Amino acid sequence: MDYSNATPETIRQLIRNREFMMPTSGVASGYAQGNLVILPKEYAYDFLLFAYRNPKPCPLLYVSDTGEKHLDKIAAGSNIYTDIGNYNIYRDGKLVENIENVEKYHSDDLVSFIIGCSFTFESELVKEGIRIPHIEKKANVAMYDTNIRLEDSGVFSGNMVVSMRPIKARDVSRAVMITSSFAKVHGAPVHVGNPADIGIDDITKPDYGDFVGIEEDEVPVFWACGVTPQNALRQSKIPFAITHGPGYMFVTGIKNSDLITY
Amino acid sequence: MDYSNATPETIRQLIRNREFMMPTSGVASGYAQGNLVILPKEYAYDFLLFAYRNPKPCPLLYVSDTGEKHLDKIAAGSNIYTDIGNYNIYRDGKLVENIENVEKYHSDDLVSFIIGCSFTFESELVKEGIRIPHIEKKANVAMYDTNIRLEDSGVFSGNMVVSMRPIKARDVSRAVMITSSFAKVHGAPVHVGNPADIGIDDITKPDYGDFVGIEEDEVPVFWACGVTPQNALRQSKIPFAITHGPGYMFVTGIKNSDLITY
Repeated sequence: MDYSNATPETIRQLIRNREFMMPTSGVASGYAQGNLVILPKEYAYDFLLFAYRNPKPCPLLYVSDTGEKHLDKIAAGSNIYTDIGNYNIYRDGKLVENIENVEKYHSDDLVSFIIGCSFTFESELVKEGIRIPHIEKKANVAMYDTNIRLEDSGVFSGNMVVSMRPIKARDVSRAVMITSSFAKVHGAPVHVGNPADIGIDDITKPDYGDFVGIEEDEVPVFWACGVTPQNALRQSKIPFAITHGPGYMFVTGIKNSDLITY
Repeated sequence: MDYSNATPETIRQLIRNREFMMPTSGVASGYAQGNLVILPKEYAYDFLLFAYRNPKPCPLLYVSDTGEKHLDKIAAGSNIYTDIGNYNIYRDGKLVENIENVEKYHSDDLVSFIIGCSFTFESELVKEGIRIPHIEKKANVAMYDTNIRLEDSGVFSGNMVVSMRPIKARDVSRAVMITSSFAKVHGAPVHVGNPADIGIDDITKPDYGDFVGIEEDEVPVFWACGVTPQNALRQSKIPFAITHGPGYMFVTGIKNSDLITY
């Protein structure tokens, strides 16, 4: 089956029926996918302020009302507690459960944060003819812990995690300009070249994901990464949180093209 | 005295000593001035989410930590409770006091929100040779209530207030492009021409400020206005809030040029 031309509604329905239980990379092409963080209201202020203070790693696509379950404003007919194929449950900062449906955890005290995802800007880069090696090699993007300190907010703090894409030297400038138009999905790179500067000692050994090599004519380009807020979440050791499982994103009804910020 | 070349530190010191107790328009040229809203922590989440959901009327320049008084990150050596010449105290949504210093109200439970102000983009427009009639006539900008509904957040809701500047037809396009680079100070216009569309029946009668006429070759251009959050504050009827007095802004150490968003 090719799900790249399926509508977001179809994908969400299939997931809700447990008929599509795979990572969502490439599905519903043209529509934005989001990272999910669900928190008790008690911690929502600190997290919202953390996201405001660190917009590059934590670009918010949507913040639900407290208790809101159906995110109709960004995904008609959706249920954020059933429409992702794989969820992680954290207690006191520890991953304690990985499950396919979190309906049983819904309460009127929870807030859902949908955070922009690099799939959007990657598809724009590809559309503009810029080669993304990990996509061509069907690997995961390489991600690294850095020495870039984030701005704290209450219980949330930490360093930025970045994703790295080797970009042809002749394309780096265009890659910067294209992604700079997408502030809601991490925006322009935070660093170009020289990994040591941001505390990456060995570029061949990512902390997450796959290293796919860097060719002679390529430059490592670093973007703020959506893994950052999950790390901050773990470090905060807050009593309860739900996130999506890695690779299993929330497929929204927001068109990538509507995320361009002028 | 000409205060346009004074540093922000000097202006804040003069205000703290009650030696400069006038509106801040034109002082410390080149530096951003901000609207102030101080709220009890209990209401800070709703307000922060309101600002996130309505970034054009409520562009946040800075959000303090809870209890933070010295906003050193945006204004070295400042005290937000003494460095504005005129404050309004609201109780249950009603203006109950207008005073020169709110030191006595400081508590560890309060959060300060600094909201971007149109002074920044006006100075950029003037620098680019675009005429702003109310500045030339030393009048206040004309502001209007509209039918543009804001996104609610908890106790905060309402309609957008806009400011209107008559712009030469040949300059409208440039005015849009220039202000679009300043998302943190209201950004691009929300409406160009045809006031009736946004619920303004008589353009000659602003709800706040002064109407300075619209010439044959001018088009009324509407920007989201910083009065909006104060209206939402009043309508919320929350028990306590502090704001700056109209025209008396917080003079930050942020350069206007650093507010350009790419």
